[in-house]
Amino acid sequence: MKVTTTWTGGRAFTAVGDSGYDINMDATEAYGGLGKGATPTEMLLGSLAGCIGIDITMILRPHLEKIDQIKIETDGIRKEEAPKGFTDINVTFIIDGDIDSKKIWRAIRLGKDKYCSVSDSLKATINFRLMLNGKEEENVSL
Amino acid sequence: MKVTTTWTGGRAFTAVGDSGYDINMDATEAYGGLGKGATPTEMLLGSLAGCIGIDITMILRPHLEKIDQIKIETDGIRKEEAPKGFTDINVTFIIDGDIDSKKIWRAIRLGKDKYCSVSDSLKATINFRLMLNGKEEENVSL
Repeated sequence: MKVTTTWTGGRAFTAVGDSGYDINMDATEAYGGLGKGATPTEMLLGSLAGCIGIDITMILRPHLEKIDQIKIETDGIRKEEAPKGFTDINVTFIIDGDIDSKKIWRAIRLGKDKYCSVSDSLKATINFRLMLNGKEEENVSL
Repeated sequence: MKVTTTWTGGRAFTAVGDSGYDINMDATEAYGGLGKGATPTEMLLGSLAGCIGIDITMILRPHLEKIDQIKIETDGIRKEEAPKGFTDINVTFIIDGDIDSKKIWRAIRLGKDKYCSVSDSLKATINFRLMLNGKEEENVSL
């Protein structure tokens, strides 16, 4: 698959792929940018969350009507020395709804192990947590 | 660094990090989405291009006024079986301007080896090509 990314001046770039949807990127001011877009590392973490999020909404499709909220927090830990690639990414699912935690954990596992192209592309160790209706739910099913 | 990604219905999600810049994602129609955003895999390729693109504009800062165009094509090759992570990513820089190809190759190498957090986070083999003023320029400097 192809994505074309075009310099728009300064440190800013716009990426577009088959979806036709422009993504604007820019460096932060500390790196000479104007903050007129997401940073590439934000996009990387967002792409991981979106990938596994989309997988989960597909796997849990019969239950989606009972789900009021899905929020995915990705917290990336980077090397101290440049290049500062991500070594660990902690992914917390914050979900509200009338659904069993085992169903969600199954969807998370299936998403990561079988479907998510983004997690499969990353070197980082990816750790998952689930907060369901305000309470942490451990992954008891193996 | 943290990014929060929120489900907005169907297969759609919106990610936001410290930049405050929303990134909308959606699955393609083939995967039950409405195409109302970039796909996560597009974002991954775009983040690689943006990361190395930003590095290059920083390294080539003294020469930027003489550069008329920077376009970065990222072509990702994925596994045939799911999860279809990227195994190889071919990155082609299409640059027009009054600048020596050696300076650009040096910037590409420095970007990849020393600065780019995204390339350092990916498992894929990343291959680079440079088209300068319509002509392919080999990486002769080692």
